[in-house]
Amino acid sequence: MTLSENLNNASTPAPPRMALRKTVFVGPVIQCKSLSELDICLHGAIGVDENGKIAWVTRKQPAGLEKEWQEARWIYLGENEFFFPGFIDTHIHASQYPNAGVFGKSTLMDWLDTYTFPLESSFADLSVARRVYSRVVARTLSHGTTTAAYYATTHVPATNLLADICAARGQRALVGRVCMDRLSPPTYRDETPSASLAATKSCIAHIRALDPTSSLITPIITPRFAPSCTAETLSALGALAQQENLPTQTHISENASEIALVRELFPSHASYAAVYDAHGLLTPRSILAHAIHLSAEERALIKARGAKVSHCPASNAALTSGRLRTRQLLDEGIDVGLGTDVSGGYTASVLAEAREAVLCSRHVAMEGDETAKLAVEEGLWLATRGGARVVGLEGRVGGFEVGMEWDAQLVRLGGVGEDGELGDEEEGLVEVFGGESWEDKVAKWVYTGDDRNTVAVWVKGRLVHQRRGFGKVRIVEGDEKRV
Amino acid sequence: MTLSENLNNASTPAPPRMALRKTVFVGPVIQCKSLSELDICLHGAIGVDENGKIAWVTRKQPAGLEKEWQEARWIYLGENEFFFPGFIDTHIHASQYPNAGVFGKSTLMDWLDTYTFPLESSFADLSVARRVYSRVVARTLSHGTTTAAYYATTHVPATNLLADICAARGQRALVGRVCMDRLSPPTYRDETPSASLAATKSCIAHIRALDPTSSLITPIITPRFAPSCTAETLSALGALAQQENLPTQTHISENASEIALVRELFPSHASYAAVYDAHGLLTPRSILAHAIHLSAEERALIKARGAKVSHCPASNAALTSGRLRTRQLLDEGIDVGLGTDVSGGYTASVLAEAREAVLCSRHVAMEGDETAKLAVEEGLWLATRGGARVVGLEGRVGGFEVGMEWDAQLVRLGGVGEDGELGDEEEGLVEVFGGESWEDKVAKWVYTGDDRNTVAVWVKGRLVHQRRGFGKVRIVEGDEKRV
Repeated sequence: MTLSENLNNASTPAPPRMALRKTVFVGPVIQCKSLSELDICLHGAIGVDENGKIAWVTRKQPAGLEKEWQEARWIYLGENEFFFPGFIDTHIHASQYPNAGVFGKSTLMDWLDTYTFPLESSFADLSVARRVYSRVVARTLSHGTTTAAYYATTHVPATNLLADICAARGQRALVGRVCMDRLSPPTYRDETPSASLAATKSCIAHIRALDPTSSLITPIITPRFAPSCTAETLSALGALAQQENLPTQTHISENASEIALVRELFPSHASYAAVYDAHGLLTPRSILAHAIHLSAEERALIKARGAKVSHCPASNAALTSGRLRTRQLLDEGIDVGLGTDVSGGYTASVLAEAREAVLCSRHVAMEGDETAKLAVEEGLWLATRGGARVVGLEGRVGGFEVGMEWDAQLVRLGGVGEDGELGDEEEGLVEVFGGESWEDKVAKWVYTGDDRNTVAVWVKGRLVHQRRGFGKVRIVEGDEKRV
Repeated sequence: MTLSENLNNASTPAPPRMALRKTVFVGPVIQCKSLSELDICLHGAIGVDENGKIAWVTRKQPAGLEKEWQEARWIYLGENEFFFPGFIDTHIHASQYPNAGVFGKSTLMDWLDTYTFPLESSFADLSVARRVYSRVVARTLSHGTTTAAYYATTHVPATNLLADICAARGQRALVGRVCMDRLSPPTYRDETPSASLAATKSCIAHIRALDPTSSLITPIITPRFAPSCTAETLSALGALAQQENLPTQTHISENASEIALVRELFPSHASYAAVYDAHGLLTPRSILAHAIHLSAEERALIKARGAKVSHCPASNAALTSGRLRTRQLLDEGIDVGLGTDVSGGYTASVLAEAREAVLCSRHVAMEGDETAKLAVEEGLWLATRGGARVVGLEGRVGGFEVGMEWDAQLVRLGGVGEDGELGDEEEGLVEVFGGESWEDKVAKWVYTGDDRNTVAVWVKGRLVHQRRGFGKVRIVEGDEKRV
């Protein structure tokens, strides 16, 4: 197979365990250095080995490389292109994807009954699951999502299929079977706590057989949220997480009615956060989605336990849930990442979510606290480094450092010619006129960009998505270079 | 020239005064019936005459048509396609377009000094103006904007060029030369009130020569906002508007510092709105952008004068300006439309602005007033019917009724196959799985759609934009049909 055939077939990627070729990525490299600072390296080069790991990084044209790197594949960027870490979606309901944008004026509790449970229950049919999960994984990859923490449904075969599809497409994923054994439709819930536990174990076994070292896919224990789980189920899942050393994900403090319901259902607990804590579900490996209306005591508890927060601003606005005070959480030392929360959230794009996080912070600032404002750089930090911490992959993904894995996207921005015409009308909405600094270009990407700007995506060194625009990138085989 | 050649050349449209061919548009027709109701006609047909006017409308397959209509061009839609009225952008600074997305954490007054005045002043160079204005008109057409109320700059030649470009590309536009004779950079302002007036008259004369009947292009009198105009200039412009029977546009009550400055500069006036009223700039033909922080007295005055409001939610969030209580204005009987406010607003898409209006209303609702929430249908009403009222074109555009002009877009949504694959990856982000109602499909368009879904755009019957996807639409010449 020639190189171009191989690249053109990326939509049906090669088996994940096929060895890669050493590759050198050359051009502008942008990543987050700290919460508020971008690292913009205009003439960078990064060597990625056969295992998809970053072997070396330089801030200038590489020189004195060993022969094996000279003979590698070299990918050179052109004008207005840069490499950026892949995005991490810390909270997405894969099964709800067909409802993206469909929620009317509902809020959380009626939205669940009207839109969500009927759709999720249809995943008893594996053909429904195959269709939706194939689409959502392809779509999120096209948005540059290299890692996703997925909620599936209660169904074991469908959940296992989601894991299979992620592995086949090469997306890094935490895949969770949804546990719920009360306050749910009789036809769509676990019948007993032990049934809930057994089904969860079955999915864990499947995913461990699929990917024994969690090289890409990890099971995640997923009690839907406190109102839909009995105390017995919450306890069993907390114990299982500890025993199996697995992450957990759930929802917390999204909506006033939900909070009132938790108070009613768990009257002996001091708070919503305390409910999870009492059941072993508040640990450094716990992802808590939303966390909007937490009390100071709850935040202190979450901080003490090292649990993480998934901020889902698009969903929170759409369902009128409220506004997370992200700056407050960050200042208090709580780790925060971004979640699309499809389909409470209408978009599957983490780039859009970074923009919404910035805008949400300005709505918080309108209440009088100027320091609440997030900058574009902070939105991107949440989307990459912050997300990596939330899903427990800090040091493996979210940035470009030696020893980390090459989860990356190639971003291309459109250029405007002297005549006011674009090079290619299909390149998307970001338009660079020529006077912009690189910081301006990144801001334009965050505010006006979309999937069209993500022309190629790699996970663990493997090309897992490309747009037709990727064909314009200059790719040179080591042996060609020497000719 | 064959039909397909003609259609393929739409990016360089035919001269605007060339006669059109009678055309029948057949397929789903969606428009706003009232503020909260869509009119969804699945099997509609609309006949558009040689002048771009709607000659007839039916809600079923047309029958018994005269020969001249049988021999017309017929355009038939396919699955997941519909006709929708073109969008009306009631407030956009064409000259600021290169800064879309570039504003950092600034708010109105420092944003003007840091980002806006330096860019606008560069329009003294006509080649800059040509490049930017060509791009912004092409881009807004691609977003389905068939009418735009443009701010240009203070420069007469560049403002005239914007009008020329709108006419050449076939976009309906109100084109305003910006007047500002104080509190502006010395190198970028009108030197005296009489200079401001003379330059404005010069642009009016140019546009009247270009389009004597205002068939597409209308001059609009444009005092930037009260702080940057002397009382003498405001009065002269108010008088000119009355004398020439022209619309006016300005900004009002966007930001707390701005309001304080107006109070300081015009101490004898009761309010910001009263300043405009005293200078003849609060009339049924006045467009007021933002209007966020109006007092009850100001709203009553605006209502009494019949002045209109341009709601710019993306800009208002981005610059931390505040949240318009749109429902309150509508309930009080004030006409409201949507404005992108590029580049305070980061997007040139009125579809995105409709989404942001809905989300902004939910942020207002979070403050405790559930009735503040706007539905998708209401966002679309503001983008079409509401906008038509704001720009003074009610009864001419914004809907599909006999006697109105054919300002329309062909919207295509992506379909997901049984295998989870899309028909065409380049069709955009809206994905129809098959179980959606038409209301759901429209909601998906508003929440997840973009310019890719607008595959063709007509203004006054003329095709002014098409995406390559338009080639899939079935177009039949009357004489072919009879064969």
